[in-house]
Amino acid sequence: MNAPIMSKSDAAELIVAARIRAGLTWAEIADRIEAPLVWTVAALLGKHPVPAEKAEIVCELLGLGEGVAESLRLQPSRTRDDELSTDPTIYRFYEALAVYGPALKELIHEEFGDGIMSAINFKVDIARRPDPDGDRVVVTFDGKFLDYRW
Amino acid sequence: MNAPIMSKSDAAELIVAARIRAGLTWAEIADRIEAPLVWTVAALLGKHPVPAEKAEIVCELLGLGEGVAESLRLQPSRTRDDELSTDPTIYRFYEALAVYGPALKELIHEEFGDGIMSAINFKVDIARRPDPDGDRVVVTFDGKFLDYRW
Amino acid sequence: MNAPIMSKSDAAELIVAARIRAGLTWAEIADRIEAPLVWTVAALLGKHPVPAEKAEIVCELLGLGEGVAESLRLQPSRTRDDELSTDPTIYRFYEALAVYGPALKELIHEEFGDGIMSAINFKVDIARRPDPDGDRVVVTFDGKFLDYRW
Amino acid sequence: MNAPIMSKSDAAELIVAARIRAGLTWAEIADRIEAPLVWTVAALLGKHPVPAEKAEIVCELLGLGEGVAESLRLQPSRTRDDELSTDPTIYRFYEALAVYGPALKELIHEEFGDGIMSAINFKVDIARRPDPDGDRVVVTFDGKFLDYRW
Amino acid sequence: MNAPIMSKSDAAELIVAARIRAGLTWAEIADRIEAPLVWTVAALLGKHPVPAEKAEIVCELLGLGEGVAESLRLQPSRTRDDELSTDPTIYRFYEALAVYGPALKELIHEEFGDGIMSAINFKVDIARRPDPDGDRVVVTFDGKFLDYRW
Amino acid sequence: MNAPIMSKSDAAELIVAARIRAGLTWAEIADRIEAPLVWTVAALLGKHPVPAEKAEIVCELLGLGEGVAESLRLQPSRTRDDELSTDPTIYRFYEALAVYGPALKELIHEEFGDGIMSAINFKVDIARRPDPDGDRVVVTFDGKFLDYRW
Amino acid sequence: MNAPIMSKSDAAELIVAARIRAGLTWAEIADRIEAPLVWTVAALLGKHPVPAEKAEIVCELLGLGEGVAESLRLQPSRTRDDELSTDPTIYRFYEALAVYGPALKELIHEEFGDGIMSAINFKVDIARRPDPDGDRVVVTFDGKFLDYRW
Amino acid sequence: MNAPIMSKSDAAELIVAARIRAGLTWAEIADRIEAPLVWTVAALLGKHPVPAEKAEIVCELLGLGEGVAESLRLQPSRTRDDELSTDPTIYRFYEALAVYGPALKELIHEEFGDGIMSAINFKVDIARRPDPDGDRVVVTFDGKFLDYRW
Amino acid sequence: MNAPIMSKSDAAELIVAARIRAGLTWAEIADRIEAPLVWTVAALLGKHPVPAEKAEIVCELLGLGEGVAESLRLQPSRTRDDELSTDPTIYRFYEALAVYGPALKELIHEEFGDGIMSAINFKVDIARRPDPDGDRVVVTFDGKFLDYRW
Amino acid sequence: MNAPIMSKSDAAELIVAARIRAGLTWAEIADRIEAPLVWTVAALLGKHPVPAEKAEIVCELLGLGEGVAESLRLQPSRTRDDELSTDPTIYRFYEALAVYGPALKELIHEEFGDGIMSAINFKVDIARRPDPDGDRVVVTFDGKFLDYRW
Repeated sequence: MNAPIMSKSDAAELIVAARIRAGLTWAEIADRIEAPLVWTVAALLGKHPVPAEKAEIVCELLGLGEGVAESLRLQPSRTRDDELSTDPTIYRFYEALAVYGPALKELIHEEFGDGIMSAINFKVDIARRPDPDGDRVVVTFDGKFLDYRW
Repeated sequence: MNAPIMSKSDAAELIVAARIRAGLTWAEIADRIEAPLVWTVAALLGKHPVPAEKAEIVCELLGLGEGVAESLRLQPSRTRDDELSTDPTIYRFYEALAVYGPALKELIHEEFGDGIMSAINFKVDIARRPDPDGDRVVVTFDGKFLDYRW
Repeated sequence: MNAPIMSKSDAAELIVAARIRAGLTWAEIADRIEAPLVWTVAALLGKHPVPAEKAEIVCELLGLGEGVAESLRLQPSRTRDDELSTDPTIYRFYEALAVYGPALKELIHEEFGDGIMSAINFKVDIARRPDPDGDRVVVTFDGKFLDYRW
Repeated sequence: MNAPIMSKSDAAELIVAARIRAGLTWAEIADRIEAPLVWTVAALLGKHPVPAEKAEIVCELLGLGEGVAESLRLQPSRTRDDELSTDPTIYRFYEALAVYGPALKELIHEEFGDGIMSAINFKVDIARRPDPDGDRVVVTFDGKFLDYRW
Repeated sequence: MNAPIMSKSDAAELIVAARIRAGLTWAEIADRIEAPLVWTVAALLGKHPVPAEKAEIVCELLGLGEGVAESLRLQPSRTRDDELSTDPTIYRFYEALAVYGPALKELIHEEFGDGIMSAINFKVDIARRPDPDGDRVVVTFDGKFLDYRW
Repeated sequence: MNAPIMSKSDAAELIVAARIRAGLTWAEIADRIEAPLVWTVAALLGKHPVPAEKAEIVCELLGLGEGVAESLRLQPSRTRDDELSTDPTIYRFYEALAVYGPALKELIHEEFGDGIMSAINFKVDIARRPDPDGDRVVVTFDGKFLDYRW
Repeated sequence: MNAPIMSKSDAAELIVAARIRAGLTWAEIADRIEAPLVWTVAALLGKHPVPAEKAEIVCELLGLGEGVAESLRLQPSRTRDDELSTDPTIYRFYEALAVYGPALKELIHEEFGDGIMSAINFKVDIARRPDPDGDRVVVTFDGKFLDYRW
Repeated sequence: MNAPIMSKSDAAELIVAARIRAGLTWAEIADRIEAPLVWTVAALLGKHPVPAEKAEIVCELLGLGEGVAESLRLQPSRTRDDELSTDPTIYRFYEALAVYGPALKELIHEEFGDGIMSAINFKVDIARRPDPDGDRVVVTFDGKFLDYRW
Repeated sequence: MNAPIMSKSDAAELIVAARIRAGLTWAEIADRIEAPLVWTVAALLGKHPVPAEKAEIVCELLGLGEGVAESLRLQPSRTRDDELSTDPTIYRFYEALAVYGPALKELIHEEFGDGIMSAINFKVDIARRPDPDGDRVVVTFDGKFLDYRW
Repeated sequence: MNAPIMSKSDAAELIVAARIRAGLTWAEIADRIEAPLVWTVAALLGKHPVPAEKAEIVCELLGLGEGVAESLRLQPSRTRDDELSTDPTIYRFYEALAVYGPALKELIHEEFGDGIMSAINFKVDIARRPDPDGDRVVVTFDGKFLDYRW
């Protein structure tokens, strides 16, 4: 009982390495644990606690030990990593919010009233939409509306 | 020729005030200028240049003068306003990116290769999805994939 | 239709001034509009939209014009003002969170599972508790638990 | 005498790991050392010095060595960890302060005069309040009023 | 009832200007209102509410109107102004804390136990101490000890 | 000659640990090296170079090796640690400066003219003053006045 | 002699407005004053002092008064505006430096030795290069190499 | 499968060291892998994924192991390192953007309309241009124009 | 007695404008008031209180009113303006400190012992030194050594 | 070829330790390598590449190995360390720039025109000037003037 639990970032590094070396896609792993794709990647990168059974499957699939599984089951701190937001692939989402955030706020209030889209009762999906001018990345944010209620 | 052009934030304040006083929704304004809803709100808040003809219609509809129309036609600086990102309705989008950003990056690279979702060749949509557990805010980001190409 | 709506901070300054000059307490104003005390102060300081009827009563009570009422009805941006957090009366709450925040997180997860206390479906109350060693400020945060649910 | 004392964050990591592996709740540990729940968690996470006797009990209970007990007895630096405040479960408290902080300040001054709620002569409690619309997290801040006194 | 109260910084600017033009020292003003010297300056610069009677005397003495007196009576926000801390005369105090702060913490805990020097039940004094090698500025911080007490 | 000198923060950690384990107070150590109390603590925490002879005595007293003594003799970098300033015991000093700093500046200039209190030709003292309402922490900053002199 | 000189940002706003209203391109203005294109725009936006003669021509051309010309002749402060760097059109240059800056440093040192590309003895050019896959923006930075020379 | 992949910054350190010890220029390495010069340096410093075949050649050339090659093949996070931007050789590029960025924005919009120079479909080149007054560093940014297109 | 004193930055703007319009150099003004050159410019830009007599001469010379003279006599806040430090002419001094600051610290301690160069008992001079390779800017910092003395 | 080069900060730590243990002054080392004093210290602290021959002499003199010499020869990144600027000995230089920076800018432009003092074609010297009121630290910055030249 006298060793710290492996950090979620250390576990994620091992998972990423083993996934690449095994030649598995994230989609294949998500299929194996019968979980949504974006949820699976986020969880294995350390952003969600992983149910014990799914953690077992992942570790077996990737040849990783119980230390990783224990770390995956842990409740995470979902702290923000500001440095990551400067990676161009991620930055474009922030840039879109800088341009469209105030408009989304106006339209949420117009349609729903005073409140927010929950980021907790929430899911994200990503898809590829073929387009003759170049295929498109389509990301859907889908959260329950919560009204400011005293 | 010797007065500055009204700033886009001043123009936006006048538009917001006139819209509320006239009892018009953003959707009605978007309809009138035959433009997409989110684009319309973003543009009238100062984030896109508005074609002369559409600027005219908006100003007429809201009883605003040529100074506002001139400002709307202007090329904007789309600078980020970090303070706005702390408004709870907008913050939830940033929180979602903090949690799911790295996963979206992984999946964009898995599906498309090394590159990004364009935030320029890009559109956003917002919809209300009825749900017995509480209706949902569904926001779709849709951008052309651009691969890192030397 | 061609003037901006009075900003909520300008409206709040007028309300604060008129309240003091009229010798009214916040509690008396809350009573008059039949609204909870903390909600009332927060709303009149610009943090919540005020229903038209209540805005009317406040403005009449304080001898303020329709411009203030119009501003009160507006949907606010609830952006954070970091400078305010350095006022000692407010700072102590932040200091308490620095000390007890991680413990509250542990205990929310232990009792409720993975999720958060909503700050939207939420209310705050403040009370004075007599104590022979010096009366105490008792502030209660009361928010609906939201579990991370995909 | 020539080794540094284990840091409180290292001790906390060991305690968290041993607690999970032993299948103990924080409430059970608090019971064992006959201390308030939130105080116990905060202290074991490194925010309060732990009396020697209680430190012994915790270490025995969790199978941890004297190094951990020595660290627990130490006077802490209660420095703020800004990164932690972005974890959604903790962030909601900060968001609530951003919205209600100025109102709490007004009401403390109205009720008590010029002064503050102490964060030192202070306690916090957390409870679950059943509610048909979803159970609620109820957190109570309870601090002695201190008036600005020269 | 429909004008904002003069801000404390505007009031302070008027007081500073009138004091200089009248050729009065801060010490003379403090004498007149029978208040401690440092308290008086801090209060007139906007850091403490000034009792009505004292505010009257100051305004009469300096030929300032009721608007200033009303502002002086107001409860202040004692927010921090980080820019001011770079003025060399003020900066030396911050530099002294950078060098001696950790030592003061050790010694407060050694002498008093776990707790703090209150900055609320607190007074400051400044004096000139003649010294053949150059007179000295002697500033005394004097605050009640508060022990961390649950 | 080919190993770095132990860092002053590593040396300080060893000293703090040995002091606690030996059951010595800072005052006893200061006595032993015949140096002022606050200076001693600051110097052993790494803020001043320690004369060789005093460094020897400290290391002998605490059972620490020559590596610590060598580090103590070193010229320090007295850089600021902003994180430490958020510890409540230290923060109160910063809060006091935020409230009284501008007043101290006014009074230094009134009494001495244009200049500063030196933080180099400077000493600090701390004392406990018994008080029926609770004992008080009294900290004295005592620095030579330096006038702006070209 | 008793009015401040119009600020360069005010002058730039007037120039931008007059240019748009007159339907002139930047290229036409640069031609008229016989100056390089990028230099001209930078200078009229306030980044370079404009020779008196050229300032006269610009003001005549745009119907602006002597106040603008006087401002243009002034020596500028070329301070950085961090907010501007978040505009997407400008941000892409910063992103390119984040990706290629270290490589440019390596290659400058490999080719030229220890030193820098001057940003003072320096010019920039921008051109459009037709390309069947979409025309390209080509920006050339051209600065004298300066070697670190004691 | 149970070790993390070597980080790109560790790989870059090994490459830099081996390159210097082998007495190879970046240009020689670029030649060997038949890739553009700036691309090669950026990629080996960790900013681009390196095709397997090229990674093999580099590692063989420099006597580095498969661990480095595996790291080079990895998809990078191209996060920004703000500290690096203060190195004088790199800083001059940032300074040039501070001075000329707004002018480049004006001219991109004048020539191409509303849009940006892509930093993804993009290449950089560096050259030495002999000049009697001192040779010049010529850096060319060449990116596809992307128009804001909904 | 009821108007604020003109701010030092407003006074400086008027002085700068009047100096340019009168065609006077800073050196001529310094001569007229018989004060050192750098001191004069710093003082007129608001960084030092100006003796009454000298303030009179400056205002007469430049045709400025008593309001400017009153402002010049005032004790300044010498706060830092971080934005200014990004102007290239000023930035080079900061860059030189980044490169040579640690070396200057080593050499001050080697030559003088533990202490600092005073920035209060201090003067600066600037000179032009002809050089066939291009004339040089020579700036001399000259401050009294102060040793750390308890 | 498969180990990273020792970092310049590690090399500097070894040099500083060996210098102290050998009882050598910086001046003696500078003499030995026949290089200017400030340059020598800056270079050995990692701010300049050291010619191979000089690096050899230093390492021999101090009994350090080839790893240090290899590191010294390396091209440095001269990045800024903001923490260091808070050390009092270094801070006084920054404070002097805050007070005199704008004046130096005015005088450089008055004497030389639009341009800068180079920080690359640049040298620094430090000297002790005896003075009956206390010896003085005299630091001379000497850089080539570079005019803004397109």
